[in-house]
Amino acid sequence: MPAQLIALDWGTSSLRAYKLGPGGHVLEHRSLASGIMHLPTEPRDIAGIWCADGFELAFDAACGDWLDAQPTLPVIACGMVGSAQGWSEAAYRDTPADVATLGQALHVVRSLRGVDVHIVPGVIQRSALPNVMRGEETQVLGVLQNLPVGPASRRLIGLPGSHSKWVEVVEGCITHFDTFMTGELFAVLSQHSILGRTQQPSVQFQTEAFDRGVQVALSADGQRGPLSTLFSARTLGLTGELAGHEQADYLSGLLIGHELSALNSGQPLDIVLVGNTQLCTRYQRALALCGFSHVTLAQEATERGLWQLAVAAGLLPASVQSD
Amino acid sequence: MPAQLIALDWGTSSLRAYKLGPGGHVLEHRSLASGIMHLPTEPRDIAGIWCADGFELAFDAACGDWLDAQPTLPVIACGMVGSAQGWSEAAYRDTPADVATLGQALHVVRSLRGVDVHIVPGVIQRSALPNVMRGEETQVLGVLQNLPVGPASRRLIGLPGSHSKWVEVVEGCITHFDTFMTGELFAVLSQHSILGRTQQPSVQFQTEAFDRGVQVALSADGQRGPLSTLFSARTLGLTGELAGHEQADYLSGLLIGHELSALNSGQPLDIVLVGNTQLCTRYQRALALCGFSHVTLAQEATERGLWQLAVAAGLLPASVQSD
Repeated sequence: MPAQLIALDWGTSSLRAYKLGPGGHVLEHRSLASGIMHLPTEPRDIAGIWCADGFELAFDAACGDWLDAQPTLPVIACGMVGSAQGWSEAAYRDTPADVATLGQALHVVRSLRGVDVHIVPGVIQRSALPNVMRGEETQVLGVLQNLPVGPASRRLIGLPGSHSKWVEVVEGCITHFDTFMTGELFAVLSQHSILGRTQQPSVQFQTEAFDRGVQVALSADGQRGPLSTLFSARTLGLTGELAGHEQADYLSGLLIGHELSALNSGQPLDIVLVGNTQLCTRYQRALALCGFSHVTLAQEATERGLWQLAVAAGLLPASVQSD
Repeated sequence: MPAQLIALDWGTSSLRAYKLGPGGHVLEHRSLASGIMHLPTEPRDIAGIWCADGFELAFDAACGDWLDAQPTLPVIACGMVGSAQGWSEAAYRDTPADVATLGQALHVVRSLRGVDVHIVPGVIQRSALPNVMRGEETQVLGVLQNLPVGPASRRLIGLPGSHSKWVEVVEGCITHFDTFMTGELFAVLSQHSILGRTQQPSVQFQTEAFDRGVQVALSADGQRGPLSTLFSARTLGLTGELAGHEQADYLSGLLIGHELSALNSGQPLDIVLVGNTQLCTRYQRALALCGFSHVTLAQEATERGLWQLAVAAGLLPASVQSD
């Protein structure tokens, strides 16, 4: 089956390349460690030119052979590759944003071999406390592709991670989003604070400790916020109520619980989670403890979003846009 | 003037020694870097015995000459020296706790030279989320010495630091306290998270940025908690609204603001702050923005508290207990 599009999910620490066929079906995919902060450094020949540029080297390693075979394949990319520290900066687009507005705002960088790489812009929300994302907007659009859109449909899409995003979508349009530094906070506290000193590794997920952390965040004590509850990960250890091998999952539950307690629970919401399956499963469990029962996990969101954006950008002939 | 008491404030990173005269007046004081995590390691002779014990070496360096001159001087110590990682563990005493209960529960360790060191126990509050302190209880008791105590007097004593404590005192008795990991969180975020990468050093205190951080914590956006507002220290930089040299003080204000927003502001409170003057001044400024106007800064709290406890323990003859 002939390929129609090369889609790149190019973040800080990794680069995923997808060769997509008609309808966006994945024909082949690869994962490289060449995120924008970990680019290759060894110069070599690309398209007859001696090259030392890390972005060119990573791009060629990811899909050079695909382009050798089909030199006119369009290429689209999302993620930190479009940041100020990326290959070429794709200026943020303001909310509200949807497939049409983002697809028409792709930023083009021409590679050494003469192929244009179309970079998806990130999205900025210019509220009193601004919020930005790069890559997550594409995942959100990919999720929406598979969901029914009605005139009054309102959804919350959660993207757990170092900087978790919670994105409100109304009628296929990104209208509002928040960022929670939950994952990074968990990492720095475990690695560099007093809380890490008594943590012991656990092979298994400590369900009970995780649930306890979530419930503390949701409790009356939790109302004082994480600055106040964090110390309990240490004191419960001192009083013998929390073993060393339970402390990491307790802290994880505590932080995720505080994140979720900030979600507006005023009305029933359909929630979709996107991202690392293990982490999404934790969030799904914590959401259930918070009383959110309509929670689903989305798959293949990035490649679907990139396909949708390529269609909106006119990079694909109409004949291959759907099956 | 003859000394009456040697008082040691012996924490994790430092050891302060006070030679106190009648009424608790400070005759001489010293500050050493020999906290319990930074003990001396070079063996030497103490009282005719070759010694390699870090606690003995630090103790001798801090006040060996004072004891040579007056071998019968009583010695009292507070802080992490009484923890499980300290010289000898002084078991926590439960809340409520006051000068009498703590003074009667001093834990004795006999030093190589035959002098007893009386260690003040820490205090534990066995609530659903337990809280502990070591050293702060002594500072609180020292603060109370100088304040009028009436039948209905209720005070909040704040001890800002890596692990800030807020201690409720009713009629001279520690009844309740909370711990906020504000200082440590500021440090690990500045040193190890993405927020530190765009921080630039500032010689001057960035008042406006600090106040802005406090106000964000107190705003409607702040209600979602620090996990949500933290990212603004980065995004306000991205949008050009917060310069690199303002970001550290913005983050400081943001975290302190979140800590203070958890204080019960249901009724007017007299607040006393104890600790590092520069940090207390920040807290005083933030408290004013929160509407707390009755805020004072206490001085010499530790040495006064140690004196009071030595009196309660019967270590001092009645004739020298007051001026």
